[in-house]
Amino acid sequence: MASQSDLAEALEWFDSQLKDNIKFWMSNSIDNKNGGYYTCLSYRGEVYDTLKYCWLQGRQVWMLAKLYNETKEYHNHDILDAAIQGGEFLLKYVKVKDELRCYFIVTEDGKPVKLQRKPYTECFYTIGLIELYRATSNIKYEVAAEEMLQQLIHWICVDDSGLGMPALSGALPTRQLGYPMMLLNILTEFCGNEAEKREKYSEQFKWSVEAILKHDDGRWIHEYALESGGFPEGCQGRLSIPGHAIEAGWFLLQEALTKGDVELQDKAIRQFIKRPSEYGWDKEHGGFFYYLDCGINWFPTQLEWNMKLWWVHCEALIAYLMAYKVTSDDFYWDSFKATFDYVCSHFPEKMFGEWYGYLNREGKVNQDFKGGPFKGCFHVPRALFLCRKLLTEMTTKDNVETKKRKKN
Amino acid sequence: MASQSDLAEALEWFDSQLKDNIKFWMSNSIDNKNGGYYTCLSYRGEVYDTLKYCWLQGRQVWMLAKLYNETKEYHNHDILDAAIQGGEFLLKYVKVKDELRCYFIVTEDGKPVKLQRKPYTECFYTIGLIELYRATSNIKYEVAAEEMLQQLIHWICVDDSGLGMPALSGALPTRQLGYPMMLLNILTEFCGNEAEKREKYSEQFKWSVEAILKHDDGRWIHEYALESGGFPEGCQGRLSIPGHAIEAGWFLLQEALTKGDVELQDKAIRQFIKRPSEYGWDKEHGGFFYYLDCGINWFPTQLEWNMKLWWVHCEALIAYLMAYKVTSDDFYWDSFKATFDYVCSHFPEKMFGEWYGYLNREGKVNQDFKGGPFKGCFHVPRALFLCRKLLTEMTTKDNVETKKRKKN
Repeated sequence: MASQSDLAEALEWFDSQLKDNIKFWMSNSIDNKNGGYYTCLSYRGEVYDTLKYCWLQGRQVWMLAKLYNETKEYHNHDILDAAIQGGEFLLKYVKVKDELRCYFIVTEDGKPVKLQRKPYTECFYTIGLIELYRATSNIKYEVAAEEMLQQLIHWICVDDSGLGMPALSGALPTRQLGYPMMLLNILTEFCGNEAEKREKYSEQFKWSVEAILKHDDGRWIHEYALESGGFPEGCQGRLSIPGHAIEAGWFLLQEALTKGDVELQDKAIRQFIKRPSEYGWDKEHGGFFYYLDCGINWFPTQLEWNMKLWWVHCEALIAYLMAYKVTSDDFYWDSFKATFDYVCSHFPEKMFGEWYGYLNREGKVNQDFKGGPFKGCFHVPRALFLCRKLLTEMTTKDNVETKKRKKN
Repeated sequence: MASQSDLAEALEWFDSQLKDNIKFWMSNSIDNKNGGYYTCLSYRGEVYDTLKYCWLQGRQVWMLAKLYNETKEYHNHDILDAAIQGGEFLLKYVKVKDELRCYFIVTEDGKPVKLQRKPYTECFYTIGLIELYRATSNIKYEVAAEEMLQQLIHWICVDDSGLGMPALSGALPTRQLGYPMMLLNILTEFCGNEAEKREKYSEQFKWSVEAILKHDDGRWIHEYALESGGFPEGCQGRLSIPGHAIEAGWFLLQEALTKGDVELQDKAIRQFIKRPSEYGWDKEHGGFFYYLDCGINWFPTQLEWNMKLWWVHCEALIAYLMAYKVTSDDFYWDSFKATFDYVCSHFPEKMFGEWYGYLNREGKVNQDFKGGPFKGCFHVPRALFLCRKLLTEMTTKDNVETKKRKKN
């Protein structure tokens, strides 16, 4: 069991890491001239590529607005201004003009470079704008977010042919875990605790939870499931991404707690958080694998399968702490501690702040940049912020309980 | 300098490796029921995914037909039949019906699964069919190959918008080294030593040689060059793939030798073979890096940048031996020997034949499969076949010279 001092010690670490982290992004990523954020930042914070990767534009708007909305120390004009200029960049340059699509990459000054055939930029655009609406009360952000949410619901739940990937007769209709997972996350972000909005989207909440649960075969969480049920043959059907499973786990748990759904809470914790934490952990070198093949003795064909990625470990920290808070089961505290120890000794970089993103199997830094095409101001600060919040609640609650006991 | 016994020893190794290699593919990859080849083969040769990756369909047709056409021991019906059934599979299932396009993946029985927005399947379809035409004298293969060649020339030299990648205003027109490199290779394969065909495509030969040379900045071979000259800013423009540079090197050298162009011969050897062999070699752990960033102190953003891949080493073996044969310069023999030693001690697997494909930076096997989505019956047997041929010519030539000297 975690003692008060264990919790307090962890809390202090998350608190100080968050400070270093946000300093790194606020000092190095903001493009005051063109708007938006530089995301390719070196070890020291230098811009090594001026292209703007748009997943990370929406994500950073979300992160900054979230900190503005929910913390004392970041409820200031610097953070708000940085979030707003990012939101304006989203509307003006990331969104395709007159279409409900977003570019995947734009130049420094907003010229389109690449469109992706997956809807993830649109997902992060939506959560960025909705959180910015909460920060500013400017209704235009909410309108834009909801408009894109409707489009996403259509692509994810109904028909994704508008994304430009031709449907060919040999490809059975499959669903990637990322899609319902992101939809659940967006709905959670969009509706917050507002009963009216949750009611409006209750069907989609239900759909996304059910779709996620279909990726579980009783032992593994598969990345791809057949729309008709079961899993595709071959490597695609056998692919398992422990980090996605665990992230889906805490999204489901969050939803279960909001709804007070005990059965879902149990599924989220046991199926999506506990199991992947067992098969996903590298018993030889520590840390979570990136990709696995559910088959006996097959390797995933992805070359980076055994690398240790920052985001996977961020998701695990959140999921374990959330599960421990709910269950008080030592398994989750011990798993949190093991992940925390691995993280502390491998990812954070002390001189300039932020974490390394990419380690090899043995835990050696594979690339030293702090920001890249897929790593920005998101997973690390989100985990730091959420873990700090959870630990604060746990210490406060325990303190309250301790005080109560003392009174009696 | 290489002694006669050095050459003979190497020749013996390549000869025995080629035998093991072709046995592996002939025993495990041929789909006698549906036609075509299984390409996802485990360590032991088991099919771990029945999808047929189509780059490898065309490549295997080429390889088998080449062996049939140019060796004594593989000039037999088993090899020819295996090549023909693969060629028929290309025509019937890999080519899109009524279009000059090829699928990137099809199912076991030929249903289309995926189209790529790059023209590589079409390239390998073309060289496969042309070599099959030489093996069979069946004109339909030559007609199909030339039809696709015309389409490729249009995409590569004139306008690639038909491939489906939207041209966006922020993306400067760039050219990937792979395109002119493949075109030069296809033209070489298509025309062989036939003066009439070389004359017909002389403009395209010239175009592709010039386009390749534009990727050299005087120090690095860049993967992407601007069509207007120079290199794009950022990671894309700084990317260097030593294996591609060296492969382009021996394609250029082959062309220079055919034309008797001494200036091009020198460029091919010094710029494309010698230089990448210096900056591309991992001085700490041996072997060639996969990706590099030309910038000082930047890491490539590709996670697999420091992995050691089989094909890169295959290209280097061919290029060094070809350069040594032409120049008699010890640098190339020593480089060949260093690569050969690295290869012998890391890649071949003795029990079931063929090589491992993917090693980590330290040279440890990262995935043990022999065939995958991008590894098939091509780079290893091509290198074994070509090196054996070069070594045979060198030993025979030297023998002849030695005999001459003895006579005098």
